[in-house]
Amino acid sequence: MSEAQDKKTIIVFSGDLDKAIAAFTIATGAAAMGSQVTMFFTFWGLNILRRPEKVSTKKGLIEKMFEIMMPRGPEKLGLSKMNFLGLGPRLMKLVMKKKNVQSLSQLIEMARDLGVKMIACTMSMDVMGITKEELIPGLEFAGVATYLAEASEAGVNLFIG
Amino acid sequence: MSEAQDKKTIIVFSGDLDKAIAAFTIATGAAAMGSQVTMFFTFWGLNILRRPEKVSTKKGLIEKMFEIMMPRGPEKLGLSKMNFLGLGPRLMKLVMKKKNVQSLSQLIEMARDLGVKMIACTMSMDVMGITKEELIPGLEFAGVATYLAEASEAGVNLFIG
Amino acid sequence: MSEAQDKKTIIVFSGDLDKAIAAFTIATGAAAMGSQVTMFFTFWGLNILRRPEKVSTKKGLIEKMFEIMMPRGPEKLGLSKMNFLGLGPRLMKLVMKKKNVQSLSQLIEMARDLGVKMIACTMSMDVMGITKEELIPGLEFAGVATYLAEASEAGVNLFIG
Repeated sequence: MSEAQDKKTIIVFSGDLDKAIAAFTIATGAAAMGSQVTMFFTFWGLNILRRPEKVSTKKGLIEKMFEIMMPRGPEKLGLSKMNFLGLGPRLMKLVMKKKNVQSLSQLIEMARDLGVKMIACTMSMDVMGITKEELIPGLEFAGVATYLAEASEAGVNLFIG
Repeated sequence: MSEAQDKKTIIVFSGDLDKAIAAFTIATGAAAMGSQVTMFFTFWGLNILRRPEKVSTKKGLIEKMFEIMMPRGPEKLGLSKMNFLGLGPRLMKLVMKKKNVQSLSQLIEMARDLGVKMIACTMSMDVMGITKEELIPGLEFAGVATYLAEASEAGVNLFIG
Repeated sequence: MSEAQDKKTIIVFSGDLDKAIAAFTIATGAAAMGSQVTMFFTFWGLNILRRPEKVSTKKGLIEKMFEIMMPRGPEKLGLSKMNFLGLGPRLMKLVMKKKNVQSLSQLIEMARDLGVKMIACTMSMDVMGITKEELIPGLEFAGVATYLAEASEAGVNLFIG
């Protein structure tokens, strides 16, 4: 395995629970196997990184609407299929717990412990009106140029949309 | 083209007919051109590999619900857009037949004939309560570590979600 | 950075506004940094490339239905989430304008100026009954074999679905 192939990047565009679980399972698996992993969160993917508590912010009307309507963090995300107004995610979380599969919150924690670099896309934050204060600690903030520089040096690059 | 670039992997996360057709078109195309191709089926993607007939299984309530509500194999999959309660997929299959484009079932058969390695994700099977008996023959069963080992040696890695 | 890593390919399978913006932001960013970028538009992604005006075509019934129901170009695309019957895309476009973020139409124009190669998938065009006359100028037309040849020589390959 060459050096290039030992780096991996994942763009997390989706904010769906099932896709977020897939993204973090791949990321933590790769990091556990010794890879340098960079996750780049953009658009709805930023919702995965939102703090669960309400954060006081000063925003315009549209940004406030986005803030209220978008899910705050792992516990509030829906499924991409069979969501059934939130019943689907609950059942999935129940089954995962029963089978001793790590929850999304645990996977995020583990990603941090394993040194996975998590970058929040600043352009998306700007468009969706998401501020740094609304996101969990330990993130980096950058744009597409940073992603591209990382991807060019990586052997595996995925887009999870 | 180096050896690394002659391997290709595709994660099939989606269980939508249109995305499954895309995945298998790429996989069979690459295999026909001499590449070693590995497809890794996870979450809803496992539905593509389900046998069309009912299989008697012993399961808990939630798993039984998943079993009943999820589509069984290529003929039952919906479209990611314009599904119209199943009318969309029917029209698409009709048009594909008329234009002599291979159906998904034919593409899966061809993938097998061309030696495409098809791996069902064991963690997803566990979470969704899908057993080996419910899936078509000729599959391998493995987890994310196996996928990552394959991806690290491949030149093209796609996530179809 | 090796030569292989200086090429990038993006399969654009989705016809959603938000995913199209992500695809073109990555493509133009990479091209601006000196990469050779190839975008391969397939299935719903072809709608991004449709001319906004009505084009007179001779088609069968199903193809005509697809033509009428699918969006014609960047201004008509919906969001993958929070579409709200077209209100979501309008708000997003409003915010992007306010924040001086390039619109999708501008990003497509820029991609062309930067020499991004845009290929329309001929098999998808055939299945969906989309003719060359209905698409914007400056495209190439090819199938999966052409995509695979490009991807095999590229260091970054993404599937945006």
